[in-house]
Amino acid sequence: MTARSRISRVTVTPVAFADPPLLNVVGVHQPFALRAVIELHTDTGLIGLGETYADESHLARLDAVAAELPGHDPYNLHGLRRLAARTLASGEGGRAGASFAGMLDVDSALDTVFSPFEVACLDLQGHEAGRPVSDLLGGRVRDRVPFSGYLFYKWDRHPGQDPDEWGEALGPDQLVAQARRMVDGWGFGSLKLKGGVFAPEEECAAIEALSDAFPALPLRLDPNCAWTPETSLRVADRLADVVEYLEDPTPGITGMARVSAGTDVPLATNMCVIAFEHLPPAIAVDAVQVVLSDHHLWGGLRRSAILGGITETFGLGLSMHSNSHLGISLAAMVHLAAASPNLTYACDTHYPWKTDDVVEPGVLEFVDGSVAVPTSPGLGVTLDRDRLGELHEQYLSCGVRRREDTVYMQTIQPDFQPNTSRW
Amino acid sequence: MTARSRISRVTVTPVAFADPPLLNVVGVHQPFALRAVIELHTDTGLIGLGETYADESHLARLDAVAAELPGHDPYNLHGLRRLAARTLASGEGGRAGASFAGMLDVDSALDTVFSPFEVACLDLQGHEAGRPVSDLLGGRVRDRVPFSGYLFYKWDRHPGQDPDEWGEALGPDQLVAQARRMVDGWGFGSLKLKGGVFAPEEECAAIEALSDAFPALPLRLDPNCAWTPETSLRVADRLADVVEYLEDPTPGITGMARVSAGTDVPLATNMCVIAFEHLPPAIAVDAVQVVLSDHHLWGGLRRSAILGGITETFGLGLSMHSNSHLGISLAAMVHLAAASPNLTYACDTHYPWKTDDVVEPGVLEFVDGSVAVPTSPGLGVTLDRDRLGELHEQYLSCGVRRREDTVYMQTIQPDFQPNTSRW
Repeated sequence: MTARSRISRVTVTPVAFADPPLLNVVGVHQPFALRAVIELHTDTGLIGLGETYADESHLARLDAVAAELPGHDPYNLHGLRRLAARTLASGEGGRAGASFAGMLDVDSALDTVFSPFEVACLDLQGHEAGRPVSDLLGGRVRDRVPFSGYLFYKWDRHPGQDPDEWGEALGPDQLVAQARRMVDGWGFGSLKLKGGVFAPEEECAAIEALSDAFPALPLRLDPNCAWTPETSLRVADRLADVVEYLEDPTPGITGMARVSAGTDVPLATNMCVIAFEHLPPAIAVDAVQVVLSDHHLWGGLRRSAILGGITETFGLGLSMHSNSHLGISLAAMVHLAAASPNLTYACDTHYPWKTDDVVEPGVLEFVDGSVAVPTSPGLGVTLDRDRLGELHEQYLSCGVRRREDTVYMQTIQPDFQPNTSRW
Repeated sequence: MTARSRISRVTVTPVAFADPPLLNVVGVHQPFALRAVIELHTDTGLIGLGETYADESHLARLDAVAAELPGHDPYNLHGLRRLAARTLASGEGGRAGASFAGMLDVDSALDTVFSPFEVACLDLQGHEAGRPVSDLLGGRVRDRVPFSGYLFYKWDRHPGQDPDEWGEALGPDQLVAQARRMVDGWGFGSLKLKGGVFAPEEECAAIEALSDAFPALPLRLDPNCAWTPETSLRVADRLADVVEYLEDPTPGITGMARVSAGTDVPLATNMCVIAFEHLPPAIAVDAVQVVLSDHHLWGGLRRSAILGGITETFGLGLSMHSNSHLGISLAAMVHLAAASPNLTYACDTHYPWKTDDVVEPGVLEFVDGSVAVPTSPGLGVTLDRDRLGELHEQYLSCGVRRREDTVYMQTIQPDFQPNTSRW
């Protein structure tokens, strides 16, 4: 029997890593993406890892909770949630301030702040018990987790920088070339296009070009609410035989329900259903057919498992959302997906778009578009402290303190306005 | 780091224990209640315990699954469920055949068969990790779990036997005396009356007598669907200021919805919502306000936690149901309740009605109507092998092979018919 560990020390380390100029409905990715790395140290010498957003308001809340954690039992997840709720209630409280660049409207900071600590606690539990995190979630139902290749319209470079290795992608041919690189390099068996950048007809043409080039691969299009319900229905009609689902074509549960009523194309969301409180109204009007889970947003891995149970109970599909992330998040996503019986879609990931990481390489490799579930204890990843230090230095020096796709875009195109509901 | 255990040997032991002549809507409890005790032994010398119904058809299914378990990893709960599903699909399949005496209509045997093995696996996980089962469910949010005193109309003896220590209870005064004994002996802070035995007016009078005698205690009445919707509304009106909820006044989701629409008294159920598939239709018509969870019926502790998450998400109350049970079940109920943040009602238990047990005494004591959550590894209970052997001998000799309250009642009152929807 192992000693029952207690948390003895907590660090929250903001890091910045280079991010290409990926275009979306609210603007363009800044030159650096931010993440916070959580380390929970125990009195028994274990280390548990978590990863989350790192906007400065989020960091302040992470620090406030971190300060309360010494002495806490890593198995006491309900207590951790209460502790986080108490801490947030006594602070500035209110909105999440996480890295959504204005795309999401999160009512409570609790789930986003709780999440990385919960993951780090499960990592500790796994180390204490000598079991991978997927075992703590009921065991893996698959040995490999398939991911979808995530395509973006993009410039070939950030202003003032050299071109990146991906090059420009502003039309169908360039997107097909980008997809080819994704498929050849990572083996993805499905593809997703981040839309909401150009007029819907252009994005439909891009999807059709991808379908012609990769007829065997399921395709998804996600315009992040760039369209009206009418436009959404027109696109759904055009792409009905081409896409496996349309993601967030239009804003809000009511708007999505209007689209849903008029098409057989499944609608997916990570924008109108992003918290448990959104499920009852969305289910009541059949607004969506697929929910994209995201443990960073839904309060960790155990609550994401509850989300999985709800989608199964109500006959909804389950897929997985991604923000720009590093290897700790990827490991957590892989363990969660491995232990989610009804997650039948390939997961999203931004992983190929980054060139840096804070975990030692070798564990999370993409083969045939999928990642083998680590079987060593905990999350199965180890911090590379040199890289962590360097990416933290980069955070300190890069000047980016929050995700602001629109603000950054307006420094380049001063008249830019978000495309939400534009078409 | 502890060795990763594998299941090496499984035993399923049916036991019988003396049960008083408790009356209900379908008849009367037989002289013996049956349970099956599951033991999972591992190659590392650990033992995990589970407890479930023991009707002979259920026993056959337990045995079939047990035969497949050697070599299985106790952390692989999803795999265990798949294994159980495969085994049942290849057997006679079909209905659950569990101990519901005709009161419940369970579509699938999977959850009832899977449940005790899941509990036993969590017990093993707890022993392997050196952690109580409540820790494996997210940690306890309460150190003690409150239970409700469970009152029954009853005869003073089974025909041909000596009177039991409880005596007769066929009217308000005798029920108040029974309640007094319950409250004095166990300290219960709330009371539930099993109704459906006499005309609703008589049972209302009993509840009113209990309210007069115990004005501080929340009261519940459960007639197990003995009433029509109209009668249910009449009772709800009469008892509106007296009961904390009415449990299953009338059969079916549609009937319950009719009652629910006409009263502010919360309706609870363990009869019209007894599986995940019943939740969407019940929620759609607001049929119930409180769901009584039961890990024996809902597929174990982790799935019960998902049920808890669903009730929280949809604004439903959560309480806990009981059948006649022994200490292994009580321990599992206590750990689950301890780790269920939104379980805000006292749980049901038949525990005071039995005089025997298969676990060593001293762990599960009722003080002030509540049971302290065991903090030792696993469920925290240990088999008393002498008592297990004796109760198994009693199973072999007693002749009871399934729960048949109606059949038994008809040996005493040949013209008896179940009171379902009678009034």
